Amino acid sequence: MNYTLDRLSKFSKEVFLKIGCPEDQASIATGILLSADLRGVDSHGVARLSGYVRLWEAGRINPKPNIHVTYETPSTAVVDGDGGLGLVVAPYAMKVAIEKAKLAGTGWVSVKNSNHYGIAGVHAMEALQHDMIGLSMTNASPLVAPTYARERLLGTNPISVAIPAGKQPPFVADLATTTAANGKLEILTRKNEQAPSGWIQDKDGQPTTSPSGVKDGGALLPLGGDKEHGSHKGYALGAIVDIFSAVLSGANYGPWVPPFVAFLQPDPNPVGEGLGHFFGAMRVDAFRPAEEFKSNMDNWISRFRSAKTIEGHDKVLIPGDPEREIETIRRKDGIPLLPSVVDDLKALGEKFSVEL
Amino acid sequence: MNYTLDRLSKFSKEVFLKIGCPEDQASIATGILLSADLRGVDSHGVARLSGYVRLWEAGRINPKPNIHVTYETPSTAVVDGDGGLGLVVAPYAMKVAIEKAKLAGTGWVSVKNSNHYGIAGVHAMEALQHDMIGLSMTNASPLVAPTYARERLLGTNPISVAIPAGKQPPFVADLATTTAANGKLEILTRKNEQAPSGWIQDKDGQPTTSPSGVKDGGALLPLGGDKEHGSHKGYALGAIVDIFSAVLSGANYGPWVPPFVAFLQPDPNPVGEGLGHFFGAMRVDAFRPAEEFKSNMDNWISRFRSAKTIEGHDKVLIPGDPEREIETIRRKDGIPLLPSVVDDLKALGEKFSVEL
Repeated sequence: MNYTLDRLSKFSKEVFLKIGCPEDQASIATGILLSADLRGVDSHGVARLSGYVRLWEAGRINPKPNIHVTYETPSTAVVDGDGGLGLVVAPYAMKVAIEKAKLAGTGWVSVKNSNHYGIAGVHAMEALQHDMIGLSMTNASPLVAPTYARERLLGTNPISVAIPAGKQPPFVADLATTTAANGKLEILTRKNEQAPSGWIQDKDGQPTTSPSGVKDGGALLPLGGDKEHGSHKGYALGAIVDIFSAVLSGANYGPWVPPFVAFLQPDPNPVGEGLGHFFGAMRVDAFRPAEEFKSNMDNWISRFRSAKTIEGHDKVLIPGDPEREIETIRRKDGIPLLPSVVDDLKALGEKFSVEL
Repeated sequence: MNYTLDRLSKFSKEVFLKIGCPEDQASIATGILLSADLRGVDSHGVARLSGYVRLWEAGRINPKPNIHVTYETPSTAVVDGDGGLGLVVAPYAMKVAIEKAKLAGTGWVSVKNSNHYGIAGVHAMEALQHDMIGLSMTNASPLVAPTYARERLLGTNPISVAIPAGKQPPFVADLATTTAANGKLEILTRKNEQAPSGWIQDKDGQPTTSPSGVKDGGALLPLGGDKEHGSHKGYALGAIVDIFSAVLSGANYGPWVPPFVAFLQPDPNPVGEGLGHFFGAMRVDAFRPAEEFKSNMDNWISRFRSAKTIEGHDKVLIPGDPEREIETIRRKDGIPLLPSVVDDLKALGEKFSVEL
């Protein structure tokens, strides 16, 4: 079942308004959510709306946050999200990074006291229109075991880097620092299919292909999968995201990161405030003339996209290609929603008297 | 056969002096090379000395470079290495990043016209003594095929991030963006052993376990190994390193990066100047008081190191732990060199009348 962007945007915004979210926040949060649906990152789109509503109803989101800079230097800032919606805190902080970059060449913002900020890539992409490289990362509820551990200590902690080009579309990498995202396991569970080896371990830390392994006390594995294939590298990357997002800002880190789901309670003895993010913006012309940079990027992209391929594949992709292709289709044909998501949204609509 | 740090340092410095390297450069280059041996990264230590000498003799290294900043803003700079030894250009550029960070909070330096800079981690670690987070990355000769490609378009492009702690030793991640480093394949070839699956592909892009696969026209695989295990993420990370190091600075990128070995010629139609690096320094107290940050880092490290382990492993490692443990041993017992490396160094010593 396909829904137009307009229809889903209107629905999402009205639901946010009904729960008491101020108009400007409802617009911003809806924009971020729907941009995930457009780009094909369905796990981070309107499918999450009811999750945010439940957190809101549980009093775990501050409806009227005073989002503000608590400390700054010419190229850095710490932002206190004041417990507001991560979907609103993140765009605020990214804007601070961009403003810093205008004056100092680069801007770097660590954020505390926030919660789930939606799709990482869209925040990084904000920099593109300013001829800047954008960077976005966030920590998240613990689901991932470091190499040799049988505890969940890290989230899927994504890293996104968006780089402008000239005639070519931009380079947009957006990657969880795990072998596979949690959303993919949910899909396998629904289909009752096994997971590939190297994605998850069971509660004893042994490899498993059961997609419910994580729910049964196991963990997602860091990018690399096992030590022989470099899982210590995926673990290190996830750790860097955690430290930049939370130790630099004073948010909760590692196993203390508050859960996104309302039925799990945050740790009663937190080590920081809320969840953390980290954003960066680098003006391209803080290094060399923007036109030179973009023309080199065009050449970089053309060379990689036209590389000789392995049999069975017709081209080498540039990070961001798949999402952009999906966006083109979905703007034309609408956004397909799974029946379970439609049911969930309809229930939400009934509860708040909003028509889907 | 073990050699003391002093003995190898004296040897390396004298060889650099004999080929015409100025005193200060010989000292700096030797310091970087030996720090790799101390940390157990043998592939980047004195074993490479004869490689640098051959490049020097081939006229591919400028003996008296004018290493200088060509452009800057408060938080950024581009450094032109003027074709000098990467082992000397890199410390210069890292120092510029640190000086920028003192004034602007952070410093970011992209470098062109350089060559192999040795071990990534040691450059990042320079920031630690200033209570800064250090970042170091470099592009390298093409050995890696992007996902779906059967061409080598990227180097092993390492990323290193060094983060200071308080009572705990620092967090030092230093990772090639491939499943396995090229040095590991060389060791397997010498031992005549097969490589694990997921490390390399053959010239047609098919998986192979032959350690000579890369030499026979194949390629190393990006971290993740194959698409199902996230190789597109390792490819994206390697690409980001390439772009930050070379497209921002104006160095050669992708398949145009000049080879380290003297018997392979650089591309006759380069797209930039030399090889590129990227360095960063972030003052911890540009975000929050350094003591607060370090005390949180201590807690982060303790929590992860004491995590419950999988049977057969006694503790979870913090990035940097293995290298630090090796350094402690080697400072006491000396640096073990393979017979082939000893032979190579002895030949070098004979040629230049320097005693090993």
